[in-house]
Amino acid sequence: MMNPSPKAPLTMAQLAAVAGVSVATVSKVINQRADVAQATRERVERAMAEQGYVLNRAARSLRKGRSGQIDFLVGPELNSYYAFEILRGVEEALLSTEVRVVLASTHANREREQLWRQQLSDGATDGAILVLADKHSLYLQELNRRHIPFVVVDPFGELGPDDLSVSATNWAGGRLATRYLLSLGHRRIAVIMGEPSHPCTQDRLAGYRLALQEASVAVDPALIRFADFHGERAHQEMLHLLALPEPPTAVFVGNDEQCLGVYRALHERGIAVPDAMSVIGFDNMPYAEWVTPALTTIRQPLLEMGRVATKMLLRLLDGESVETLRVELATPLIERASCAPPQKHP
Amino acid sequence: MMNPSPKAPLTMAQLAAVAGVSVATVSKVINQRADVAQATRERVERAMAEQGYVLNRAARSLRKGRSGQIDFLVGPELNSYYAFEILRGVEEALLSTEVRVVLASTHANREREQLWRQQLSDGATDGAILVLADKHSLYLQELNRRHIPFVVVDPFGELGPDDLSVSATNWAGGRLATRYLLSLGHRRIAVIMGEPSHPCTQDRLAGYRLALQEASVAVDPALIRFADFHGERAHQEMLHLLALPEPPTAVFVGNDEQCLGVYRALHERGIAVPDAMSVIGFDNMPYAEWVTPALTTIRQPLLEMGRVATKMLLRLLDGESVETLRVELATPLIERASCAPPQKHP
Repeated sequence: MMNPSPKAPLTMAQLAAVAGVSVATVSKVINQRADVAQATRERVERAMAEQGYVLNRAARSLRKGRSGQIDFLVGPELNSYYAFEILRGVEEALLSTEVRVVLASTHANREREQLWRQQLSDGATDGAILVLADKHSLYLQELNRRHIPFVVVDPFGELGPDDLSVSATNWAGGRLATRYLLSLGHRRIAVIMGEPSHPCTQDRLAGYRLALQEASVAVDPALIRFADFHGERAHQEMLHLLALPEPPTAVFVGNDEQCLGVYRALHERGIAVPDAMSVIGFDNMPYAEWVTPALTTIRQPLLEMGRVATKMLLRLLDGESVETLRVELATPLIERASCAPPQKHP
Repeated sequence: MMNPSPKAPLTMAQLAAVAGVSVATVSKVINQRADVAQATRERVERAMAEQGYVLNRAARSLRKGRSGQIDFLVGPELNSYYAFEILRGVEEALLSTEVRVVLASTHANREREQLWRQQLSDGATDGAILVLADKHSLYLQELNRRHIPFVVVDPFGELGPDDLSVSATNWAGGRLATRYLLSLGHRRIAVIMGEPSHPCTQDRLAGYRLALQEASVAVDPALIRFADFHGERAHQEMLHLLALPEPPTAVFVGNDEQCLGVYRALHERGIAVPDAMSVIGFDNMPYAEWVTPALTTIRQPLLEMGRVATKMLLRLLDGESVETLRVELATPLIERASCAPPQKHP
């Protein structure tokens, strides 16, 4: 709140007296709280205007040293659906606050990176949600350097010891998918994972190995294939698996988009899903329910990850402590029509 | 730029002399342009600090009466992928500017709506990109009332006579899809459209009717079906079409997600795509390439729509005129594997 007139500013109590309301109500109006009747709000604002007060977001920011905004920062190569689901969770967590979210990704544009650094210096942002960053990320380094709080959603690699993150239980999800296939009677279970460098890949694979070990099924390295997170390479890897002397009867795939490539390879070879091959994905994208056959998959709680990360950030901004640096959200099995017991060979 | 010290502010020329740089360079630093060497920028900033200048985004906003931010406003029911593609276009258009985009959707939350109105009054936003709004939209009415410029992407209904919009050539897209099926030899061509109330549905249908008329094929009302933009109702409508005394040999579908429901209905009835039924969609979602068979579809240029809308908005913010109120972007045919000539019945 600024007072551009030469006379001394009123105290909040004096302003309340002028407006004929309580001090609490004046405070609510100044802080733009919604729980004030419109007529009352107008009375207070009129009194403020008469006394030369300007109630203005930018002016309030100067006073409080807070911008009331947080940055949402994603890598340039990000899948749109994936990012927007997380963003929806961020928005949901902010609904009951006055904080706004700014899309501040610089998309590897150097001028925009410089502008963003300048905006950080200028106090244009109070904190940030980063998606798929690691400790080498420009965003993370700049935020740390300026002591601006942030939370990483689904870290792409190692973080610093004090960095906060929210991810899915990739390890438990990998174990769950594999246990499910084992429970149907499969023993030759292949994996076609996404990027091998992504921690989620390593964690899901560790879950796969453990589930096999628990069931006393030997891990066959020929059945472990890596690709990227898209359809084409998964298609190739599935064709490769089908050409093995002893092909798998089931395959656990790194994400749902890859499953579409796997489906195509199976279709090309005349192999029916789920009768002759079981397929299980990861993510639960909206189309997973509507591809044919409907895809059994492990749900990644993207919206919830965005929401939880934002709530952690809000606690930091309010100077509160968070209970844990690393949060992992559960990854349930969504059972549909792409998995069945293996065929008995005559 | 503010000068909190009691002495009179220096002119830009005096500041340039103190810093030992040109006036143009001082101007660039004040306006946070990226094309200034880091050492030069620091020298100017140091000179400004010594003279009691504060260069700060919020302070600059007060001076210029601009927040440097625009709002991105979507309806609560929006498909995540669709929205994020548009948003990527918005970000792309802003890359060469200093403008930031704020996600300001209120999601039918009344407190958040009130807060947003307050933020508009406070000058927290310079303009807005609205997705799927019409003239009855709260966003549009509030922005108009405050004379804040905006552009609507893919309007959901009628707009006011002076409102700017960017959409796809839905009419031409509908005609193109139908012409393509006609060129393959189809004469019994059905449509399963999305929401009948959406202007895109009406426009695509008009394109379909014209293409049939041009080819002297009578429009059969039994072949025109409406649904929503999701898989389930499209699945039902396809089953309905298959139960007709004389079923279609091809179907033009309102979007790609609906095509997945159509594929399932055909799979359930043992009807092969494209041999026994041609299917063409609309949108070109990322999975369209990877479903089996790969989906032939009409591309909706979502990213480009976001980019063009933002460029129009930036022109308005700079006080320039725009050449046209309504922009429509082309919708090309993406030919894949889901359409073929109709089967010859023996």
